[in-house]
Amino acid sequence: MSGFGLYVKFVARPGQRAALVDVLLTAAGQTGAVPGCQLYVVNESVTEPDVVWVTEVWDSQAEHDASLTAPGAAELIQQALPLLAGPPERVELRPAGGKGVTAG
Amino acid sequence: MSGFGLYVKFVARPGQRAALVDVLLTAAGQTGAVPGCQLYVVNESVTEPDVVWVTEVWDSQAEHDASLTAPGAAELIQQALPLLAGPPERVELRPAGGKGVTAG
Repeated sequence: MSGFGLYVKFVARPGQRAALVDVLLTAAGQTGAVPGCQLYVVNESVTEPDVVWVTEVWDSQAEHDASLTAPGAAELIQQALPLLAGPPERVELRPAGGKGVTAG
Repeated sequence: MSGFGLYVKFVARPGQRAALVDVLLTAAGQTGAVPGCQLYVVNESVTEPDVVWVTEVWDSQAEHDASLTAPGAAELIQQALPLLAGPPERVELRPAGGKGVTAG
């Protein structure tokens, strides 16, 4: 499979996780409509009260990168930034297959 | 959304990642057929050559836990254990929604 995957860890400022989840769910709605996006799942951490993890799987990295400049993306990034305690961390992945993704 | 999510990090013994990916893809095929399994995606880490990450999303933790004793699960665990450099690590998640999962 030749796809591109990410786990992105966002740390919200204290008390701002719910607002951050809302912004990221809006992003999921927009990004999910972009060609090549297979997964964009927003998750709260069960053990870290300020942490949100986003799971992404794309047909290619190019399509992921293009989504960051798609219409509406910049506005969402501006909404999210004040809610963050620091820059997001990324785990870069090469999906090999499984339930819920299509082989590349 | 009331689902249950996991990122599971497996560290393979040197040179055993490909064999581990194969075992986990077999597990994805079996587990993906179990009621309540929305996602079971096997990923290679891009930056850590011995690491495999599995992304799971379930309708409930109970259904996830039941899958560990489903037919064939014990055999797959026995196949995977000798390939591992240590015990898997888990990030427990509460999916909030997005592209690729259904709201609980």
